[in-house]
Amino acid sequence: MELPTPNKKVVAKRDEIVKKLIEIVGRDGVVSDEDGRRAFESDGLNAYRCMPLAVALPRSTLEVSKLLKYCQSEGIKVVARGAGTSLCGGALPAEDAIVIGISRMNKILEIDYESRFVHLESGITNLAITQAVAAEGFFYAPDPSSQIACTIAGNLAMNSGGAHCLKYGVTTNNVLGLKMVLIDGEIIELGGPYLDADAYDLLGLVIGSEGQFGIITEVTVRILRSPEGAKPMMLGFGSSKDAGNCVAAIIAAGILPVAIEFMDKRAIEVCEEFANAGYPLDAQALLIIEMEGSPEEITQALDRIKRIAEPFSPTSEVTATTEQQSEKIWRGRKSAFGALGRISDYFCMDGVIPLARLAEVLERITQICEGHGLKVANIFHAGDGNLHPLILYDANNPEELQKAEAAGAEILTLCVEVGGCLSGEHGIGVEKRDLMPVQLSKTELALQMRIKTMFDPDWLLNPAKVFPLHDRQDPSLASQT
Amino acid sequence: MELPTPNKKVVAKRDEIVKKLIEIVGRDGVVSDEDGRRAFESDGLNAYRCMPLAVALPRSTLEVSKLLKYCQSEGIKVVARGAGTSLCGGALPAEDAIVIGISRMNKILEIDYESRFVHLESGITNLAITQAVAAEGFFYAPDPSSQIACTIAGNLAMNSGGAHCLKYGVTTNNVLGLKMVLIDGEIIELGGPYLDADAYDLLGLVIGSEGQFGIITEVTVRILRSPEGAKPMMLGFGSSKDAGNCVAAIIAAGILPVAIEFMDKRAIEVCEEFANAGYPLDAQALLIIEMEGSPEEITQALDRIKRIAEPFSPTSEVTATTEQQSEKIWRGRKSAFGALGRISDYFCMDGVIPLARLAEVLERITQICEGHGLKVANIFHAGDGNLHPLILYDANNPEELQKAEAAGAEILTLCVEVGGCLSGEHGIGVEKRDLMPVQLSKTELALQMRIKTMFDPDWLLNPAKVFPLHDRQDPSLASQT
Repeated sequence: MELPTPNKKVVAKRDEIVKKLIEIVGRDGVVSDEDGRRAFESDGLNAYRCMPLAVALPRSTLEVSKLLKYCQSEGIKVVARGAGTSLCGGALPAEDAIVIGISRMNKILEIDYESRFVHLESGITNLAITQAVAAEGFFYAPDPSSQIACTIAGNLAMNSGGAHCLKYGVTTNNVLGLKMVLIDGEIIELGGPYLDADAYDLLGLVIGSEGQFGIITEVTVRILRSPEGAKPMMLGFGSSKDAGNCVAAIIAAGILPVAIEFMDKRAIEVCEEFANAGYPLDAQALLIIEMEGSPEEITQALDRIKRIAEPFSPTSEVTATTEQQSEKIWRGRKSAFGALGRISDYFCMDGVIPLARLAEVLERITQICEGHGLKVANIFHAGDGNLHPLILYDANNPEELQKAEAAGAEILTLCVEVGGCLSGEHGIGVEKRDLMPVQLSKTELALQMRIKTMFDPDWLLNPAKVFPLHDRQDPSLASQT
Repeated sequence: MELPTPNKKVVAKRDEIVKKLIEIVGRDGVVSDEDGRRAFESDGLNAYRCMPLAVALPRSTLEVSKLLKYCQSEGIKVVARGAGTSLCGGALPAEDAIVIGISRMNKILEIDYESRFVHLESGITNLAITQAVAAEGFFYAPDPSSQIACTIAGNLAMNSGGAHCLKYGVTTNNVLGLKMVLIDGEIIELGGPYLDADAYDLLGLVIGSEGQFGIITEVTVRILRSPEGAKPMMLGFGSSKDAGNCVAAIIAAGILPVAIEFMDKRAIEVCEEFANAGYPLDAQALLIIEMEGSPEEITQALDRIKRIAEPFSPTSEVTATTEQQSEKIWRGRKSAFGALGRISDYFCMDGVIPLARLAEVLERITQICEGHGLKVANIFHAGDGNLHPLILYDANNPEELQKAEAAGAEILTLCVEVGGCLSGEHGIGVEKRDLMPVQLSKTELALQMRIKTMFDPDWLLNPAKVFPLHDRQDPSLASQT
């Protein structure tokens, strides 16, 4: 992965910059020593590392505004950071960039049950929202596996999803408004505690823009009523193909479970060892299907799904009977990445495909990885065709890293070929930036880059992400006219 | 309503332009005589009229591309038109503009039940999509009252909603991808038959952009499984305040009906006379609440809603017992605008407010209209706080038109004051363009206008809409830097 050549002038001014940052956010809000900065050198995609110039931890929108205004005036690059759980290097620093971490801005500002919204500071964790409204019987729907740690700011930056987004939609479907600081320090508000947006939907544009338009400091999210109950069922299958076809059949039948999660044999084994969730070790593929509602509704729906599954001859079928069992089943799934991380380094892909192509694509993913002499584990949100092949490799072996990168590129190109796209919920970041031309025509890429230039004329915000490094220099693409 | 001064050079070249249009789309695809053009001089907001230079009716994306390329090269303005049902003048022509109508591009290109999408040409009507998949038990969710006539292209332009969007979301929540022709003739594709979009969400940006970025020629929409059944209940109330508070209480209880429609006394009377739906003529306000699912689920949910409604002492309560009764109840609601049109001219407002403020805002709307000596009827999607005050006036009396415009402006300003916005589903068009500064700061307005300039440097597409007429000339707003 190539990093751009740093701006030596900026690097040379480091001490002066740190002094200014301390002026703005106070000494306790600046991390400038080497050990301290090392904690920020990478995110969830830890194959890539880079020490930032310094880290600023503001406490208010006003401080963020002062920071950005200063950075623009001095031509200093800025990497915004939530909890640093990005899986595509979305928060990877640069040598000539400061990191602005919003983790100290984590207050809930307003809860309104009649209008069903929560207004909060963007540094709050995803799970904290649900925790704040659970007592009243409400919840915030998007649930990334990292929800204990990841911030709402990061969720908005990547338009994060999660297992339960099959029914409730991803971040952009659950956010009503936001407050954002632009690179020149200007503060804008988009949307608000109501359904729609006026004129052009800048709210939708900013959600998923990977910290490249500004720094989001406040968010208004929609909350939903917690269901009466929910229950997961585990269906084991003799092949990934059977499991994949079963998912397509369930969706084609018009049933919309809260979640349909897929694990292949390798994922089953690793997660079972980690969580003792009772996953079927004899299965080649496992579907975790969750339905919610009243006990009768759940039973009715699960029975219907069992009938739909029959032609694909499930090798096992277990429905959770207790809360504890349900929790274990989900804990196993949500800790999957961590569990796999214990046995191997991996690249987590994030492609999306039309559901009808699922079985076929899974077979080709295995072939691609074997072609590079690598193992792969598949564990993903099957219901909406959002694949997460985990390519296993040895990070201490540079050759294997290259092989893993190559296999990943082939897999994502395949997703686009079958009519899908490069990213479902993790974003583009540094990981997929060079694949953007696979998805977008030159005209489409140019439109994207012009919008970037419009928000951030000098391309200071979250540098070297999203777009192929060298297209940036191509005026026919990035220029405004 | 002010129209910009036409470009005399373009108007003078009319014959030459018509000749070129015929070259591109054929003689049968061009409307140039006065009577023919008159059919296009206004849309659903017929208080405003303007004859276009000519009308072109292309049959393919390629023809649209040739038309736009020609128009840009000659500096000819373009107004895209679906079925012309816009309620905010979104399709109002200009003297120096040609109208491009896409009504002849109305084919369904692909239906895929496994991946749950339909790929179609944008000139197809909203209802035709559901009709095409109903036999297989699927439907397309957004349901504007004009769904028999309005096109999907128009739905995308305005991000249209409908009575059933409370549960299923508006257009932007149900569209997966589109093909659009830019002003220079370039053809781009955004999104596709999968859940998410790469990089910046241009799909979300384009949906709701009111024909100002390009002309959408193909669309991929998500289809949903039809519910097992659905049933409306009518609750009458002694005051709009009671009805409004009841809606807030239902939502706060976390119940999400498919629809919660609100009618005040005037609307009840007019619609009942038109549709004989059995609306309670003794009520000051009526709620039509629809639940769907299995018969048991529906009964259970409606019973719960009745209990929630008790404190607001409903004056009547009727649940539909037959299909015919359900149809009548909905026909009355969906024909409301037409029914009112029989007794009076009206301006249909389209503000959105946080639900908790509903009762209070309804009172102030009546005061505002009475202040101008005008009557108002309220009939709207209460569940998501999307108000539709219908200001009644006499179109033959210029003074009354001005009063109605003034009352409308006050009402929409009120919506913004209480934390809402100017438009829920009808768009800005010409009707609300001058109110945009009420909603947006100068910075926010500038961002919006720069995006417009990026897509359409000469502002040729759907002129004189969305933005205050004179801000366009303010370089600090519209310019790119």
